[in-house]
Amino acid sequence: MPNSKSKILHKLPAWAWLSHYTPVKFKSDVLAALIVVAMLVPQGMAYAMLAGLPPIMGLYASILPMIIYALLGGSSTLSIGPVAIISMMTFATLNPLFEVGSPVYIEAAMLLALMVGIISLLLGVFRFGFLIQLISHPVIQSFIIASALLIAFGQLKFLVDLPLKANNIPEFVSSLLQYFPLLHLPSLIFGLLSISLLIYLPKLLKSQAVQSRIGPTDFLVRAVPLILVCLGIAAIVFLDLKIYGIKTVGAIPSGFPPLSFPHWNWELVMTLLPGASMIAMISFVESLSIAQATALQQRSHLDSNQELIALGLANISAGVSSAFPVTGSLSRTVVNADAGAKSPMAGVLSSILIIFVSLFFTGFFEDLPLTILAATIIVSIWKLVNFQPFVDAWRYSKADGLAMWITFLGVVLIDISTGLLIGIVSTFVLMLWRISRPHIAVVGLVEGTQHFRNIQRHQVITSDRVLSLRIDENLSFLNANNFKGYLINEISLNDKLQHVILNCSSISAIDLSALEMLEDLNAELAKLDIHLHFAEVKGPVMDKLQASRLMKHLSGRIYLTHFQAIRDLAPEIFEQHKDYTI
Amino acid sequence: MPNSKSKILHKLPAWAWLSHYTPVKFKSDVLAALIVVAMLVPQGMAYAMLAGLPPIMGLYASILPMIIYALLGGSSTLSIGPVAIISMMTFATLNPLFEVGSPVYIEAAMLLALMVGIISLLLGVFRFGFLIQLISHPVIQSFIIASALLIAFGQLKFLVDLPLKANNIPEFVSSLLQYFPLLHLPSLIFGLLSISLLIYLPKLLKSQAVQSRIGPTDFLVRAVPLILVCLGIAAIVFLDLKIYGIKTVGAIPSGFPPLSFPHWNWELVMTLLPGASMIAMISFVESLSIAQATALQQRSHLDSNQELIALGLANISAGVSSAFPVTGSLSRTVVNADAGAKSPMAGVLSSILIIFVSLFFTGFFEDLPLTILAATIIVSIWKLVNFQPFVDAWRYSKADGLAMWITFLGVVLIDISTGLLIGIVSTFVLMLWRISRPHIAVVGLVEGTQHFRNIQRHQVITSDRVLSLRIDENLSFLNANNFKGYLINEISLNDKLQHVILNCSSISAIDLSALEMLEDLNAELAKLDIHLHFAEVKGPVMDKLQASRLMKHLSGRIYLTHFQAIRDLAPEIFEQHKDYTI
Repeated sequence: MPNSKSKILHKLPAWAWLSHYTPVKFKSDVLAALIVVAMLVPQGMAYAMLAGLPPIMGLYASILPMIIYALLGGSSTLSIGPVAIISMMTFATLNPLFEVGSPVYIEAAMLLALMVGIISLLLGVFRFGFLIQLISHPVIQSFIIASALLIAFGQLKFLVDLPLKANNIPEFVSSLLQYFPLLHLPSLIFGLLSISLLIYLPKLLKSQAVQSRIGPTDFLVRAVPLILVCLGIAAIVFLDLKIYGIKTVGAIPSGFPPLSFPHWNWELVMTLLPGASMIAMISFVESLSIAQATALQQRSHLDSNQELIALGLANISAGVSSAFPVTGSLSRTVVNADAGAKSPMAGVLSSILIIFVSLFFTGFFEDLPLTILAATIIVSIWKLVNFQPFVDAWRYSKADGLAMWITFLGVVLIDISTGLLIGIVSTFVLMLWRISRPHIAVVGLVEGTQHFRNIQRHQVITSDRVLSLRIDENLSFLNANNFKGYLINEISLNDKLQHVILNCSSISAIDLSALEMLEDLNAELAKLDIHLHFAEVKGPVMDKLQASRLMKHLSGRIYLTHFQAIRDLAPEIFEQHKDYTI
Repeated sequence: MPNSKSKILHKLPAWAWLSHYTPVKFKSDVLAALIVVAMLVPQGMAYAMLAGLPPIMGLYASILPMIIYALLGGSSTLSIGPVAIISMMTFATLNPLFEVGSPVYIEAAMLLALMVGIISLLLGVFRFGFLIQLISHPVIQSFIIASALLIAFGQLKFLVDLPLKANNIPEFVSSLLQYFPLLHLPSLIFGLLSISLLIYLPKLLKSQAVQSRIGPTDFLVRAVPLILVCLGIAAIVFLDLKIYGIKTVGAIPSGFPPLSFPHWNWELVMTLLPGASMIAMISFVESLSIAQATALQQRSHLDSNQELIALGLANISAGVSSAFPVTGSLSRTVVNADAGAKSPMAGVLSSILIIFVSLFFTGFFEDLPLTILAATIIVSIWKLVNFQPFVDAWRYSKADGLAMWITFLGVVLIDISTGLLIGIVSTFVLMLWRISRPHIAVVGLVEGTQHFRNIQRHQVITSDRVLSLRIDENLSFLNANNFKGYLINEISLNDKLQHVILNCSSISAIDLSALEMLEDLNAELAKLDIHLHFAEVKGPVMDKLQASRLMKHLSGRIYLTHFQAIRDLAPEIFEQHKDYTI
């Protein structure tokens, strides 16, 4: 039994780093943990608020999930916890169902985390990690940019203390127009001041650091939001700003996160399922791409299914410890790695520090103004809003550019989940659309070689009696008719035609619909005394064609190379071209 | 004005045949019309019954639509009217909403025809005829076979006079088990007798014809259902079979079909929309494939958008003339062509004959037993139930075979529309699945040629320092990760590797996600001192790559041919092979 236990231990990803852990690594990890926690405390509270939840839940969301991932995850620097996009998606899922911040809303957030966890876990266990491929990079990129925009707009309500809505831009604009006269000036001034400090203080500190080369500046830069939080609390307490109506976080319970299994209500589960699936997908995509980027730098391998399992269990732990859906945070992971984190122990230490904060320092945050948290979110998220990727994508490929715009407009005009779904579906539709309109080229022989190229792009040798065609796509039901139409049109232009050679070098599959089309085509051409030949048919395609009726009734031949075909069918073209000795 | 009028006339497809019409053609058309009507009267009534409608509506559905198509359609022999599959779909759409046969049910059927017509018309006007390509042949074939099975089962209720349901097989089996003890023996005997006559009478007539070479036998064979109808009525009337409880058609109103615009209730329209879209799609697919097959025989051209317009207006005319959705009928079109129809005038004449029937002969059909109509449907539809296509498709391509089975099971286990939808979606999913798992081959030089082939299939020349890869699919987000994993695995197997040549002869498009993957790959390989080269890049792909970061930072080169690349990078392999002079 002890033996089997130790085997299980050996299988834990944590075994690899725990068994080689040293005091030197520990020192580095402690420093990294301190820096990350300085960022995490205000971020966690802000992202909880973004999800429509009490700020303390942002701290809870950074405790158990971080420990679980440290033990099971493959990345040594990935920082798991509350993340803006996922918090926004949580809000978008729960907002239409319950009153924001109410007990049922909070319990539903926990249930959502549990569901996200179970979905991820199942996908990982059943090795569905490859599903991540269903979302193209441009769609993800556009989704993040559009969500960042909505998140920034959504935080304006705390800056101006108005009940603005920001599930989409039209809603935001109309609620802004409606409430604008009621704008709360002191909150706005306080907020703008916070934003300015958040932007310029780090710049100031960095320029100072370059001049004086102080070591811990980096820590100070990372801690700017925490410093601002302390300044804000001090201002509220000592300047008594509450009398101007500036809203604060309010009473926060202290202690360990309450552990409880959220009530499993099947009806609610079914309602939350689409949102939970979406969150699971995005949290996986985000987490894996961050983990992969850092793993690459360390030349370490990452198993996407193991990552799904780790992320799944992290979310399940969030669900049972009064938290909400979590994933890997890009900003904190980068900071963690930069600060010299040597192992997942840095994550464990961060979570121990957060436990201390929630045990002993919650009272401290009661007077924290909400505008400061909102300012933190706006400043950190606004960096993501960048339209250059749209220009670049459009320039490279209209389809990718279009998918980006569709995703973006879907998110900002409808809502975050619908937009993502529309974006994903649009990439499939655009791909099928491309397949249905294949590039077809009439090709000819490049003089002096055995190669065939598009007659419109290259100087090539052709024969009047032979039509050489290349279709740059697999033949399938989506393009069979299209191809046939193209071929019939080419045939109608040339009444000397005796042979058609179909160059199959780009064809890796011919489906049944296309096979039937080719059978019909072969029969119809035979009636016109035109022979149909195939050249450069790939092995797997030939294997399948072998047994078909097409091969039985084919009026022409199968040639290994297009060159052999043309040498056989149009030997006359080589008479004028002395490069060839046949 | 008269000039513009005649221009419009000239644009009518009917102008082409009307302007060259001759008395000889008229004689042929009259004969064809007589034969078609002999089939159409029992079929029309039976298919109306199949749709859950009064039999007379089957005659109405054959009047205006046939004339409209004759004037606007492109096929000279296509016979438009009630068709089993479309009637079944009509039933499946309306059955869950209203009591079968009730006035609201009847009006909804008319509305459905109107909607099918409007959808088809719009698709045709906006030139969306290409959408037909979205359904693969195997799916259509499987859909028709499965529907035929359900239709045959559905008619058993008239044969045994039990309230059987047949929206899907489980429902059919459970209702059969429930009601079986109440089976009505006289109806069953009458029905089985009808089925036997419908099967053996034509065979007997044909064998007689071969012996005695009588001309009009063909007409007699086609008229067997009509003869049976007359025999059935005679039996009911003269043998007084009603006392045995055999049900008959009952009172039929006589006269022209009442012309009226069905009530346009938006809520109902939205409810019917999915069903109407499905019916429009299938009626177009059916009609076009029948028309194309006959057009091919006459070497005439068929414009799919014009066909959509004609079919759309035919259905609109059905909607306003107390009928239900119509399309081209395979059996009647074949008979029409075989009987020598020379022009669409045959269709016009058929519809005039049907007007006569509905004006003067409706009383005659009042005593027609329902079992005979059911027997007509069962015998004609059962010919379509054939499982060989499933075997053939599976043998040729697992994906096509799977799509057929998914469609079949969807139709027989859920219902006709859902099954079709599942089938269509499954072909897309299977296609995307195939794209996500591309065939990748390590290739080598075929000795004595400039051609490269899979090292596992051919005897080829390779070099330890150079890896030549060919991916048989466009690179996209669906397979970029897969490809990268394959390549990294190949690299890990060979530590002498200095060059990777990617043969792009099968690549017609590289999307942005794949481009980013290649950029990453190029950078990572560069760190390992491995150069990445591209060969046989197609023109359109090269155009797009030209401006990318990949080309700017590429560690290797672009070669026009793979042969040039290998000659440049691994000249040593030619030393042992004297066929080459370099």
